[in-house]
Amino acid sequence: MNEEKDHKDLEEFRDLLRNKRYSDLREKAAEMNEPDVAAVLEMMEDEDMLKMFRLFPKGLAADVFSLLEQDSQQYIITSLSDKEAGSIIDNLYADDAADLLEEMPANVVKRLLANANPETRKDINHLLRYPEESAGSIMTTEFMDLKEDMTAAQAFARIRQKGVDSETVNVLYVLSSKRVLLGTVGLRHLIMMPEDARVGDFMHEEVVSCTTSEDQETVAQIFKKYDFTALPVVDNENRMVGIITVDDVIDIMEEEATEDIEKMAAITPSEKPYLKTGILDTVKARLPWLLLLMVSATFTGQIISSFESALAAVTILTAYIPMLMDTGGNAGSQASVTIIRGISLDEISIHNLKAVIWKEMRVALAIGVTLAACNFAKLMLIDRGLFHNPITVYVALVICLTLVVTVFAAKLVGCTLPIIAKQLGFDPAVMASPFITTIVDAISLLIYFRFATILLGL
Amino acid sequence: MNEEKDHKDLEEFRDLLRNKRYSDLREKAAEMNEPDVAAVLEMMEDEDMLKMFRLFPKGLAADVFSLLEQDSQQYIITSLSDKEAGSIIDNLYADDAADLLEEMPANVVKRLLANANPETRKDINHLLRYPEESAGSIMTTEFMDLKEDMTAAQAFARIRQKGVDSETVNVLYVLSSKRVLLGTVGLRHLIMMPEDARVGDFMHEEVVSCTTSEDQETVAQIFKKYDFTALPVVDNENRMVGIITVDDVIDIMEEEATEDIEKMAAITPSEKPYLKTGILDTVKARLPWLLLLMVSATFTGQIISSFESALAAVTILTAYIPMLMDTGGNAGSQASVTIIRGISLDEISIHNLKAVIWKEMRVALAIGVTLAACNFAKLMLIDRGLFHNPITVYVALVICLTLVVTVFAAKLVGCTLPIIAKQLGFDPAVMASPFITTIVDAISLLIYFRFATILLGL
Repeated sequence: MNEEKDHKDLEEFRDLLRNKRYSDLREKAAEMNEPDVAAVLEMMEDEDMLKMFRLFPKGLAADVFSLLEQDSQQYIITSLSDKEAGSIIDNLYADDAADLLEEMPANVVKRLLANANPETRKDINHLLRYPEESAGSIMTTEFMDLKEDMTAAQAFARIRQKGVDSETVNVLYVLSSKRVLLGTVGLRHLIMMPEDARVGDFMHEEVVSCTTSEDQETVAQIFKKYDFTALPVVDNENRMVGIITVDDVIDIMEEEATEDIEKMAAITPSEKPYLKTGILDTVKARLPWLLLLMVSATFTGQIISSFESALAAVTILTAYIPMLMDTGGNAGSQASVTIIRGISLDEISIHNLKAVIWKEMRVALAIGVTLAACNFAKLMLIDRGLFHNPITVYVALVICLTLVVTVFAAKLVGCTLPIIAKQLGFDPAVMASPFITTIVDAISLLIYFRFATILLGL
Repeated sequence: MNEEKDHKDLEEFRDLLRNKRYSDLREKAAEMNEPDVAAVLEMMEDEDMLKMFRLFPKGLAADVFSLLEQDSQQYIITSLSDKEAGSIIDNLYADDAADLLEEMPANVVKRLLANANPETRKDINHLLRYPEESAGSIMTTEFMDLKEDMTAAQAFARIRQKGVDSETVNVLYVLSSKRVLLGTVGLRHLIMMPEDARVGDFMHEEVVSCTTSEDQETVAQIFKKYDFTALPVVDNENRMVGIITVDDVIDIMEEEATEDIEKMAAITPSEKPYLKTGILDTVKARLPWLLLLMVSATFTGQIISSFESALAAVTILTAYIPMLMDTGGNAGSQASVTIIRGISLDEISIHNLKAVIWKEMRVALAIGVTLAACNFAKLMLIDRGLFHNPITVYVALVICLTLVVTVFAAKLVGCTLPIIAKQLGFDPAVMASPFITTIVDAISLLIYFRFATILLGL
């Protein structure tokens, strides 16, 4: 984002490190924003990074640590002494700590947890038990709780005393003695209240929350609908166990969009960025789909084989196979990709199936007829008139009629398949272009040869 | 998300409306969360919606209004009296009001602005001047400003007095007398401070901000990097003019991902949800791309035409054209889509071109050889052994060697084209599957016929 500034900071830090001006270095780092410090560390040699890191005060070290790339985190945590590593873990937010430990070898996890304090250990172990991509696995257990019968002044005193520890204190949660969530109080509302106002009287009671087992995609939709900065998470007995903060939701939304995009392009989604994924992992994510699609494409080949004599009689028909297949594939994927995205955004469901089909049918008709008309003109004027290809009006008709029907079939398959897949509990994104292309290829060839048989008397 | 509850609420509201229990209705609406009230309104008949809306207290009416769909907003605002409409506009956040007015006919805008108060009018006119998708157009002009030499107690008093008006008071902005942004104070830090502490002494000075002309995609990346809930926006003289809040960023991220996905599927992006887009708009968004791709696909046809005699001699070659084209297209789009997403997420740039090519070459080799080996086995054992197709070892070799080279070419074209497009200032997303498929089709056919000429002596 701001590479020039990062490079300037890097040079300064290197200078300070070389000249052993450690207190100046600490001061400079403390003044900067943590994400910028992390960006500079990432650019350093491993040893310099570790040296810098050891010089940071504990709080800053933990904040910066949570922003580093996974491989840097693993390098640092395994290079530190047990005591130093334990202290980092203690100072991390519980959800960040759990994320880190999930990626580490079991013996390292054991060692790290042994050196963290018992409270931290409990929180982390708790988080590690939730399934991946569930609300429980992305929440943090640190939040600020109030009691119903506190006064505004008492609430304030509690925040002042405990405040810095909680990932967000912009919203406060009012719990019963059994830790059931009763209401919320925005910090900005709390400060408007007279000192003796009772929390139970001014708290917001219509609280939106989710359970620990909720899917992270649903969590993101709740944030989108309610414009929250934090969402409380409750267990099966409605006891509050944590909060999800909006910064995690931003990461989730990006992750989910990337996953959808990858699935639509017939790639098994990976969590790592492209440049950090190994060759073998990349091959594993792509090869099975290509194999599957290759096998299904041989059906298309079989169709061509079985019409070999027709093609031998009117050889010019072969030349238009790629155009028909490509147009069908593209028309189908336009429809499927639009519908898949609509399903992801919760805009389209099985209830809309009829409306979707009716719309796509009209769109297909308009597009198919226009494409066919343009193509007819091109066939007669350019291919026949200019290049003297052996195209009769009947051949042109076969090609153009096939085009209309192909577009129609492509749009219909493209819009229904994802919705039906979703309804049957499959992932609609997998029903995108490549699969639909394969189906549409077969359909368009069958139509092509059918029209050829009828109109050209083959 | 919670359709059952929405339907229950709808029934209750309808009952209250029918029985003219207006104060109960007002009370129920005030207790609910605004997005839920909006969801219920959307399910009502237009007239009932308007009736409900008129019963709401002003503040709630504006909040709910900003959450309605565009067509409901337009219906309401044009059905209300000038004075009522003006009051809604006054109570909206300036950015929401500007968004609304941007979509209305000019005469309605004029009438509405005439009925808003002068302060509102100024703010809105100001926002309407920024280009679409710029930081200026998505910011709100309402934020809480402090002075450097205020004490913590004075800052509090100011928030208490002005607070409810600002879209967010979780972060406060310290401005100079010329309104230059000097620092920020988190509300949660302010409450920790002794009453007589000077704002200038404890404010955070390393402020990250953006200018009004910044692209919204860059704004989203800043939020992602710094985990902000609000970002200050400054003009060219570094004077603070507004803030962008995280809820708007969530919408932007979703919009940008949808745009990328649509472009990758050869669709001109639209801002409206699928079911709200008219037939004509849908056709317009899809037809030009299909036409363009149809024309370019005819080159592939020309290649086939020019090798007509070779195909006539070994007719079985035709049957494998779809498999080769599809595999090439799929292999290419796997690479291009991965790279395009990486560019969008700021993970890949022209600096990584060499690393990307080197990686894709190795991936392509592994995938190409595996696919070719599987294909060779299938050709000899199934197509020849089982179906008695006339496949010699040489024919199988032609097909499999073409497969290796096609995958190689597809991955290479797929990974370089988006990066180069980006570097030349074009949109990389447009370089996705459909275009790459067309290029790869041509390449793979040329290779196919070349190998056939050499190995089969055609």
